[in-house]
Amino acid sequence: MEKEREALQSWKDRVAKELDSVMAFWMENSHDKENGGFFTCLDCNGKVYDDLKYVWLQGRQVWMYCRLYRTFERFHRAEILEAAKAGGEFLLRFAKIAPPAKKCAFVLTRDGRPIKMQRTIFSECFYIMAMNELWRVTKETRYQNEAVEMMDQIVRWVREDPAGLGRPQLSGTPAAESLAVPMMLLNLVDQLVEDDEPLNKKYSELQDWCVQRIMKHVQRDGKAVLENISDDGKELPGCLGRQQNPGHAIEAGWFLLQYARRKGDTNLRRHIIDKFILMPFHSGWDSKFGGLFYFQDVDGFCPTQLEWNMKLWWPHSEAMIAFIMAYSDTGDSALLQLFKQVAEYTFNHFHDPATAEWYGYLNQEGKVALSIKGGPFKGCFHVPRCLAMCEKILEGLLKRIGGSK
Amino acid sequence: MEKEREALQSWKDRVAKELDSVMAFWMENSHDKENGGFFTCLDCNGKVYDDLKYVWLQGRQVWMYCRLYRTFERFHRAEILEAAKAGGEFLLRFAKIAPPAKKCAFVLTRDGRPIKMQRTIFSECFYIMAMNELWRVTKETRYQNEAVEMMDQIVRWVREDPAGLGRPQLSGTPAAESLAVPMMLLNLVDQLVEDDEPLNKKYSELQDWCVQRIMKHVQRDGKAVLENISDDGKELPGCLGRQQNPGHAIEAGWFLLQYARRKGDTNLRRHIIDKFILMPFHSGWDSKFGGLFYFQDVDGFCPTQLEWNMKLWWPHSEAMIAFIMAYSDTGDSALLQLFKQVAEYTFNHFHDPATAEWYGYLNQEGKVALSIKGGPFKGCFHVPRCLAMCEKILEGLLKRIGGSK
Repeated sequence: MEKEREALQSWKDRVAKELDSVMAFWMENSHDKENGGFFTCLDCNGKVYDDLKYVWLQGRQVWMYCRLYRTFERFHRAEILEAAKAGGEFLLRFAKIAPPAKKCAFVLTRDGRPIKMQRTIFSECFYIMAMNELWRVTKETRYQNEAVEMMDQIVRWVREDPAGLGRPQLSGTPAAESLAVPMMLLNLVDQLVEDDEPLNKKYSELQDWCVQRIMKHVQRDGKAVLENISDDGKELPGCLGRQQNPGHAIEAGWFLLQYARRKGDTNLRRHIIDKFILMPFHSGWDSKFGGLFYFQDVDGFCPTQLEWNMKLWWPHSEAMIAFIMAYSDTGDSALLQLFKQVAEYTFNHFHDPATAEWYGYLNQEGKVALSIKGGPFKGCFHVPRCLAMCEKILEGLLKRIGGSK
Repeated sequence: MEKEREALQSWKDRVAKELDSVMAFWMENSHDKENGGFFTCLDCNGKVYDDLKYVWLQGRQVWMYCRLYRTFERFHRAEILEAAKAGGEFLLRFAKIAPPAKKCAFVLTRDGRPIKMQRTIFSECFYIMAMNELWRVTKETRYQNEAVEMMDQIVRWVREDPAGLGRPQLSGTPAAESLAVPMMLLNLVDQLVEDDEPLNKKYSELQDWCVQRIMKHVQRDGKAVLENISDDGKELPGCLGRQQNPGHAIEAGWFLLQYARRKGDTNLRRHIIDKFILMPFHSGWDSKFGGLFYFQDVDGFCPTQLEWNMKLWWPHSEAMIAFIMAYSDTGDSALLQLFKQVAEYTFNHFHDPATAEWYGYLNQEGKVALSIKGGPFKGCFHVPRCLAMCEKILEGLLKRIGGSK
């Protein structure tokens, strides 16, 4: 017990220290003081190598800043709130391509002109996360109105009519669902309903719908989580149908664990840990070099994604969250062991002793393949979210066993 | 001289033998005898792992089959012509999404229903190559009419009005030109004007325009070929502007060499060899592990493409063509040495002694990263085109020095 307490304390200290230095990296290097918003294309030393503003990453950074400001005393600092508000105003002003239509750009110029759009819901999802969290820290209702209006729009796009997304309707396109869609919606419901009974009620049915849809991605008699399935819950033909993304399944795992906890459903919890956390972890872990593969084919064919065998930072940060949360919810020491296994790999390979923020992209052998610290898909989000959540969960565990310092 | 003759003869024998076995791989494994067209998603042993039909690769395979049928006695075989015609009929029937509109799909189901489209001209380009070459071997004018009508359409999309491509007009999108567009058009003009005086006349101005546009991608006072430039021929800001793709520049190099030869312009030829072949080769060659990088940043930043340091088959096959052609046109033995350097790397790393067709995707160290032999972007095209062109050029060289066997 004492040994366990020491291990938990040591990991808590480690992640807390890492969170401080990672946040210092973004605070120092990413703020666009002229236009608001954030530069996320940062090289290994924090130098801006491109000034494009990716809307996913703008929304995520606003969310991260507000969440830390709101829930960590040491991050409750004016400079953090100010940067978050400047990012939020940038999004309010520029994210939508043709207001009042809700469709958001994927990437903007530094001064906010749209460059590209995606025919998906994700820019809009991170817009919602930013706006809801901004409302929580500022209490300005205009932010919350934006969040709820956008949420209602994306629910209509997903459940009623996707026409506003601009996808061409082609006769051969399979009616398919990516795991990303219901899991992202579940995550948004989590975000919106916190301490908000009216929204909790409003989105209760949506939340159950999301969970049911996510569950259908468990295929092959429970032996695999497939990234894409048909609209009626069946396996799709070809590479699309056989695709697995272990990190994504594991991330869905901890979203689902939070749901199971709210419902107090321990059978569901066991199912989630088995199917969405342990199974993808064991299939996705590289027994030769360590680390989680990015993509796999359930029948063992070679995936066609060129990066399939690379080790990306975010599946590892999601696995750290999933294992420590699953351990906290169950007390199963095997889950703590797996947390340590992933966390050791992560700190040994992604952590950069020189400049705080993690590398994002390693080759199969674990060597840094891209030296960037931020880019079109890596911003101030997965690393600090992981560190902040792990710190809180470890703190809770230490309190429970009576040893927190 | 005798030593050089032996080297040329040895390489000619090697590429000829390789061409035979590579073509046997596609003949045996890729034909869809039910619907016409070709399966290109083939694993390392030739097994079909997905039955999607990528329009680029359908067009390219029809072209390759016809070109070999037309220009190589040993490939002038009924089974090759029949497969090409079946592929051509498949394209005629299914490539266009909503005929009479010319826009083609990017990928079709095995029975020809469209799944995805790209908002570019490339499916259409390979459709033209297929149709023109089919006309050359069959003399059926309906193929040539298709080719010329489609050519006129893409020229209008590129030079007059891109609206039919379906790209959203966004205020921040830079007016940019990818090197791919003028070089692909130049390649198409080459294809269409062969032994065709009326079309030679019709496309003469377009050909010069393409060459001028390609030349503008030489930037930084002649020190770099940049993949994307502004519409008025200037460097673009950010990663997009700094992007280099050595294999692409080298491929443009041999397209341009053919133009310089037609014009009899030896100054232009020297410029092309220096700027489009030698310069990208020297900047793109990995001095540590050998092979050409896929992407580079002209200022030495790390590219954001996850595959930037991978070694792909096609830059190497294009470099083999470029160096042997440049050697043939100039007699400069340094160029023959570089042909040998690239060809040795290629045969040592991409060639698979077990099953003929080359691997396509190696990691930086030269180890096979994807074991597939064909996929969404790798079909029956770059490898056999390289081998066939090298065989012909080597044959011509041997004839000139009087030693062909």
